Amino acid sequence: MSVSSQWQNPLRDERDKRLPRIAGPSSLVIFGVTGDLARKKLMPAIYDLANRGLLPAGFSLVGFARRDWEHQDFGELVHDSVKEHARTPFKESVWNRLAEGIRFVQGTFDDDDAFDRLAQTVKDLDTERGTGGNTAFYLSIPPGAFPVVTKQLARSGLANADENTWRRVVIEKPFGHDLKSAEELNAIVNDVFPEESVFRIDHYLGKETVQNILALRFANQLFEPIWNANYIDHVQITMAEDIGLGGRAGYYDGIGAARDVIQNHLLQLLAFTAMDEPLSFEPKSLRAEKAKVLAATKPLEPFEETTARGQYAGGWQGGTKVPGLLQEAGFAKDSKTETYAAVTLEVQNRRWAGVPFYLRTGKRLGRRVTEIAVVYKRAPHLPFDSTSTEELGQNALVIRVQPDEGITLRFGSKVPGTTMEVRDVTMDFGYGHAFTESSPEAYERLILDVLLGEPSLFPVNEEVELSWEILDPILDHWAEKGSPEQYAPGTWGPKSADEMLERTGRNWRRP
Amino acid sequence: MSVSSQWQNPLRDERDKRLPRIAGPSSLVIFGVTGDLARKKLMPAIYDLANRGLLPAGFSLVGFARRDWEHQDFGELVHDSVKEHARTPFKESVWNRLAEGIRFVQGTFDDDDAFDRLAQTVKDLDTERGTGGNTAFYLSIPPGAFPVVTKQLARSGLANADENTWRRVVIEKPFGHDLKSAEELNAIVNDVFPEESVFRIDHYLGKETVQNILALRFANQLFEPIWNANYIDHVQITMAEDIGLGGRAGYYDGIGAARDVIQNHLLQLLAFTAMDEPLSFEPKSLRAEKAKVLAATKPLEPFEETTARGQYAGGWQGGTKVPGLLQEAGFAKDSKTETYAAVTLEVQNRRWAGVPFYLRTGKRLGRRVTEIAVVYKRAPHLPFDSTSTEELGQNALVIRVQPDEGITLRFGSKVPGTTMEVRDVTMDFGYGHAFTESSPEAYERLILDVLLGEPSLFPVNEEVELSWEILDPILDHWAEKGSPEQYAPGTWGPKSADEMLERTGRNWRRP
Repeated sequence: MSVSSQWQNPLRDERDKRLPRIAGPSSLVIFGVTGDLARKKLMPAIYDLANRGLLPAGFSLVGFARRDWEHQDFGELVHDSVKEHARTPFKESVWNRLAEGIRFVQGTFDDDDAFDRLAQTVKDLDTERGTGGNTAFYLSIPPGAFPVVTKQLARSGLANADENTWRRVVIEKPFGHDLKSAEELNAIVNDVFPEESVFRIDHYLGKETVQNILALRFANQLFEPIWNANYIDHVQITMAEDIGLGGRAGYYDGIGAARDVIQNHLLQLLAFTAMDEPLSFEPKSLRAEKAKVLAATKPLEPFEETTARGQYAGGWQGGTKVPGLLQEAGFAKDSKTETYAAVTLEVQNRRWAGVPFYLRTGKRLGRRVTEIAVVYKRAPHLPFDSTSTEELGQNALVIRVQPDEGITLRFGSKVPGTTMEVRDVTMDFGYGHAFTESSPEAYERLILDVLLGEPSLFPVNEEVELSWEILDPILDHWAEKGSPEQYAPGTWGPKSADEMLERTGRNWRRP
Repeated sequence: MSVSSQWQNPLRDERDKRLPRIAGPSSLVIFGVTGDLARKKLMPAIYDLANRGLLPAGFSLVGFARRDWEHQDFGELVHDSVKEHARTPFKESVWNRLAEGIRFVQGTFDDDDAFDRLAQTVKDLDTERGTGGNTAFYLSIPPGAFPVVTKQLARSGLANADENTWRRVVIEKPFGHDLKSAEELNAIVNDVFPEESVFRIDHYLGKETVQNILALRFANQLFEPIWNANYIDHVQITMAEDIGLGGRAGYYDGIGAARDVIQNHLLQLLAFTAMDEPLSFEPKSLRAEKAKVLAATKPLEPFEETTARGQYAGGWQGGTKVPGLLQEAGFAKDSKTETYAAVTLEVQNRRWAGVPFYLRTGKRLGRRVTEIAVVYKRAPHLPFDSTSTEELGQNALVIRVQPDEGITLRFGSKVPGTTMEVRDVTMDFGYGHAFTESSPEAYERLILDVLLGEPSLFPVNEEVELSWEILDPILDHWAEKGSPEQYAPGTWGPKSADEMLERTGRNWRRP
């Protein structure tokens, strides 16, 4: 596994094209700075961008929160979060330059005065530091607070860009809890910010391994010719976590695994895996293909057989005794929230008709792993005597999204010896081995894209709504079915999920 | 790189089918026992087969040579060669059992009496040890001696099988030095032994990695759909050696690299790479497909541009001063024998038309390596901005025949970072890592096949003659051209070889 030095590479011209672009004059306002996401991901990512020289000289960071803080209190919070979580080494000089642009505005979301002060701060920053008035607002807050905050941004004039400046809003999932609420949410946001100024973050799309799906498919000759229903038997998209939901009841209870993960991350992975080649990587072209493939994606019925859901029970996971969901603090004692969800989808177009896409996600599973397994049909015929087709597994290309990022190819190879015995083997590509470049965090990539106004990796409202259209019928079906099946922690989900695949003669991969 | 344990393998029934078959009652007579091949390969392979329990209880080994030896002198030679060269551990018990069946017959090839004694020895062995009279004659001798030896085998009755016994003859390359001499040689051999009793050894076909070409292609769904001119740009088949020809003038001078390697090993590799799927692995089906593909294979003209040949000069190779071919003992001072040969072939059928197969072999090259590189066309279009098609290499599947046996896949992957830069990376499968089973030596496999009467891996006279038909026009062309181009030792051959590919916009792989 290494970058091949065995081939004479043509000279690399146009090197500049591959250098990352530096963001122009701008500032970033974060709502919800005391939250986990801001501390663990956003502020470290901003430092890493500064460290890589990708932020403009006068870049400024404004925190908005209820706490009675001075600028330097917020500065300390940023400092600590950077020290603890940044990917790149801490350098005083970088930090000092960044710290000069850190401001704090105290207030609540319904406090007109606070937003007026925020508007003044943004204005002052332009004067003092030359941000050009260009401002991104990162709403790291519950969606329930979106209406009031966007209204305040409108009222205070903060949302209004003029000809020479831009104003953008960044929002995080959940983008509603069904199609109707998503439409309402989109209407609220779009009422204040035009769609081209809305950046919906799905941090999976910031991952190298996800973007590499497109490189793998469209920069190579090998894969695309057999990337269709003629050769592919089915696709498994898995996001498994080994942790439970302790402390997350407020967000998770009543939401569940399908809304939390399938609606966004897994359907986006499906879109990258199944989409046709875009005209170019321009945002418009890319989104058009994603929307096209999502519009063609339908849940397969009957849901009784094509879906499964579960809820983790208490028990032993590894050496630790862990509570079941119903014992976790904050969850309703009779919560019907699923912590495991599996669905069967079909992309109903010429390329994919007949190929099931199995999507599954769960908490307290065997291990933390996200992967896409493209499983090929069996060879149509084996001319060998000693190995029957049934003994061999199927060829598979596995894109390991995280952790241990890379690609695995499974195929049959002759076992050394005097007979023609064929056995499954794997070959492997690992990012960690192949590249000396370390991967930027998803949030580095995505925050930089926001500042650059580069929206390719952000789902638009159409995609969000199409995703809910896919999921809603399944959620409706489940809502009528009572409690999900219990499954033991550390396993790979409920029995019904295994049965769901066995019914079609297939098996879940054990990642 | 490991045997995948991630998939539930269906239960393995029919285990017995995959156990190697044990040879029935038989003996092996070797002519040329004092030669390198017999000592380094044949006798060790026989011991290894005995050690693996694949030889029959009464198996007997008869040496025939000019030396004035007793049985035990020959026994000592076998013993020493086994101790030095066997693949499996030396066990006294195995050796003692094998040694009981070792005999020696002294004589020259024109000595009727010696062959009569040999006939008697074979007969006695049947009586004493129950070989059933089944006998294979391994002619590890120069082809010039074939006529006299086969005639002696006929005269003494040794070649004549009756209904209940078999007699087989094993011959090694060179199978002639052009089509005409090959036809004559085949006629001489077939005059005594029917074609189904003739086992022509091309030891490359005994290699695991060569047999795995068929497993790879026909046991998998992934490769065969893109194994054709629609997707493949060209194929490079390389057998490179770093050693010179010191001590081999008698065999090599006037023969040269093309006759020594391309006519047999490389054209057989081409046949395995390019053939259509055989009806089954039955010898008849397999040979039919090989003959079909060889019959479709033509050398591309004009030879001035599509071939290259060279002769190694003296100079430094690594830290050693080495002589040029013209300084090697035994070579004519004006020898025109090529030590490097490269040819361009085309398989003129629907699957391959337009895809050049580049075959090259040479002595005193950069390193010892045999490989088949299937180089795919460039992706027809790249939707990316920052990497132009020209900067990326082409996808390639490289079958590493020896050493470091395995498979390498080259493809483009996104470089970690904020831009869509794509760079060539490789993924790798290594036999050594994947299988705990160690690979039998090619000669183990092939000698066992001779005793079993399993001829799949032995080229028939038709294949030999077809191979000469491909090569003869090139050899004729070269014969008119005077001396080959000199190349420095430790390089990758003459300049004309590089130009030969550059002319078509391609480059040789640096293995």
